[in-house]
Amino acid sequence: MPEFFNVFAPDVALRTLLDRLQRRVETTIVPTHQALGRVTAEVVLAPEYLPAFPRSTMDGYAVRARDTFGASESLPAYLEVVGEVRMGQAPDITLATGQATVAYTGGMLANSADAVVMVEHTQKIDATSIEVLRPAAPGENVVQVGEDVRIGEVIVPAGSLLRPQDIGGLLALGITQVKVRCRPRVAIVSTGDEIVSPDIAPTPGQIRDINTYTIAALVEQAGGVPMPMGVVKDDYEAQRQMAVEGLAQADMLIFSAGSSVSSRDMTVQVLHSLGPPGVLVHGIAHRPGKPTIIALIEDKPAFGLPGNPVSAMIVFRLLVRPTLYALTGCTQVPQPKTVQARLTKNIPSLTGREDHVQVRLSYADGELHAEPVFGKSNLIYTLIRADGVVVVPLDQGGLYAGTEVPVQLYD
Amino acid sequence: MPEFFNVFAPDVALRTLLDRLQRRVETTIVPTHQALGRVTAEVVLAPEYLPAFPRSTMDGYAVRARDTFGASESLPAYLEVVGEVRMGQAPDITLATGQATVAYTGGMLANSADAVVMVEHTQKIDATSIEVLRPAAPGENVVQVGEDVRIGEVIVPAGSLLRPQDIGGLLALGITQVKVRCRPRVAIVSTGDEIVSPDIAPTPGQIRDINTYTIAALVEQAGGVPMPMGVVKDDYEAQRQMAVEGLAQADMLIFSAGSSVSSRDMTVQVLHSLGPPGVLVHGIAHRPGKPTIIALIEDKPAFGLPGNPVSAMIVFRLLVRPTLYALTGCTQVPQPKTVQARLTKNIPSLTGREDHVQVRLSYADGELHAEPVFGKSNLIYTLIRADGVVVVPLDQGGLYAGTEVPVQLYD
Repeated sequence: MPEFFNVFAPDVALRTLLDRLQRRVETTIVPTHQALGRVTAEVVLAPEYLPAFPRSTMDGYAVRARDTFGASESLPAYLEVVGEVRMGQAPDITLATGQATVAYTGGMLANSADAVVMVEHTQKIDATSIEVLRPAAPGENVVQVGEDVRIGEVIVPAGSLLRPQDIGGLLALGITQVKVRCRPRVAIVSTGDEIVSPDIAPTPGQIRDINTYTIAALVEQAGGVPMPMGVVKDDYEAQRQMAVEGLAQADMLIFSAGSSVSSRDMTVQVLHSLGPPGVLVHGIAHRPGKPTIIALIEDKPAFGLPGNPVSAMIVFRLLVRPTLYALTGCTQVPQPKTVQARLTKNIPSLTGREDHVQVRLSYADGELHAEPVFGKSNLIYTLIRADGVVVVPLDQGGLYAGTEVPVQLYD
Repeated sequence: MPEFFNVFAPDVALRTLLDRLQRRVETTIVPTHQALGRVTAEVVLAPEYLPAFPRSTMDGYAVRARDTFGASESLPAYLEVVGEVRMGQAPDITLATGQATVAYTGGMLANSADAVVMVEHTQKIDATSIEVLRPAAPGENVVQVGEDVRIGEVIVPAGSLLRPQDIGGLLALGITQVKVRCRPRVAIVSTGDEIVSPDIAPTPGQIRDINTYTIAALVEQAGGVPMPMGVVKDDYEAQRQMAVEGLAQADMLIFSAGSSVSSRDMTVQVLHSLGPPGVLVHGIAHRPGKPTIIALIEDKPAFGLPGNPVSAMIVFRLLVRPTLYALTGCTQVPQPKTVQARLTKNIPSLTGREDHVQVRLSYADGELHAEPVFGKSNLIYTLIRADGVVVVPLDQGGLYAGTEVPVQLYD
């Protein structure tokens, strides 16, 4: 029986690809308010100061701070209120000694005012005069020009995944368009004589295609554009043709099934035939998902994932997802959510192999428990019923019941 | 100066709304492969067994287990190989005593076969006979009919947020359409005389609208459809008109700014004028975000968020997000990602108030440190430069430097 030539540790396998991956997807300009989840293609610098004018942070009175020095409840400062600066308007008043204007949260101060006294620290004497009961320091309750952002400052580095707050920050500075990376297009091919499209009733021995759709959903979650190519039989020429078409249209190619070493497994030959450098990795020291192929065809990454849908999803998260982010130059790849939980059973493993074991979480005795879900790895519902995975690292022979371990939650 | 009538703890404020919220958004039927992130409107039961036929989990030979009993390396069982069952095909062979067929991973077994012997545990004698070197137990290396899912079993409960694996699981059973909740539509109104659209150059005293867009992005992240209504001045009739229009088109209404108690703050009157039961909460025991309004207008939730963009985002995550999920009947609201980190500075707070303090994370001395980012809360870039928040619970007066605390990471 043929064997894997050389099995790579998962992180080494990934680095083998990423170290050689020069390709970045194209750039495009999108309206900032539609840029959620996109990756910036270049650094963005502040084109102006924020705020652009000194702004009150309180409702109260704009004053010259020196007019309030020494003020107290027993010896208040008397000020003449000479008007107000309305919201959204520039001041048309300049304060003389002993004068104040009404100021609003977010509004400008009168000219020559340098502080705002909170309304709670004043007392109204009559329609045009107040007592100030506490001294105001210069700059008190005022946001200065550029206190949030200075002109020319880096506000969003290249390779940033844009979040709601980034969109707000860009628009606050009038940046209504942003140069981002296109979403990587991923051609997805499902292989196997026994596979039929889910809208066809399978005859005995046939099963419905799952991998096209789980992989497409994972691509979508990672910000890519899935391009399902359909199901192809275990036929070298047909598979090669599909691979060529997929690569022509997409930035990445994913085959599922046929990634192992038996006579029916021809993905490795197909991927190797498509151009240099070809197959970089065939076989990873990981369970599930040992029969995984990583290739680079000219500058486009290609993967052969196991046909087992559970393995295919786990290997996608392990290797394909970071590669998708690498295609956009994204520097902050989102990490899986993790919780600490206590193992309820031993997990056997082998040194030299990384295991991903699915677990179900439950609360008991005031703490989170993780129960390993063993069972045949090609049952999609074991994945659906699990809450996440426990990773047994390469250098450990297993994990003991009672150990507290991090559980990576499924998205 | 007017004061808040009654300030609610954040969880009490949320419960006050959710306990009265009867509304669920409409349902719609979508193709399963496009249902990622949608919420199921009804329970889904398995229409058939999965797998539908006994399936080999290995490449090897389908056998009658009893023919291998007692087999060993020194005393192997000899079997005649009478053909193969090809992938995707039903068997046309029935095994007699002492016979075997070639079996492939995922393929059917010959009739009367009840186990599969891995190819590694056999030795080929000639073209039509093998030695079996270990006994096979009945059912070994075979997935039985219904072992993954039994007919009639609940495969996806109502109110489930569909993940890639759920889509795979549904399609594996031929469920190509699924009844889901519509995405909740959220009308968003930004108020204030000083606010201009980000594509307009502000004059002194004016600032660009941020809240419409940060809130729209947060709505999108939570699976809703943002409906930005534009900016409206501090004018009761204009605001009321906008609120009526928003409520007519949407499932939820969000006002930003004008939620406090000064003369310019008219959101509470606007929301109260729209119909019963009206304003449920005005003011929450939370910093930032005390001036928050929660209302129910007939069966539609409405919020008055603070004008300060940082407070608006934090209160959105705290109160609006769970309400959006409640509108879909979603039972598994995604929780923020959390990491443990050591505080580098004291965080002062007050008993009776929940504080959300932004922190920046860094590694030092082999552990994660969280540095509180203090500063004026209306600076959007303090939020952009932070990595997450530390929550100081209602019943604590603050947190000491050196304490290990959970940090909720921003999406």
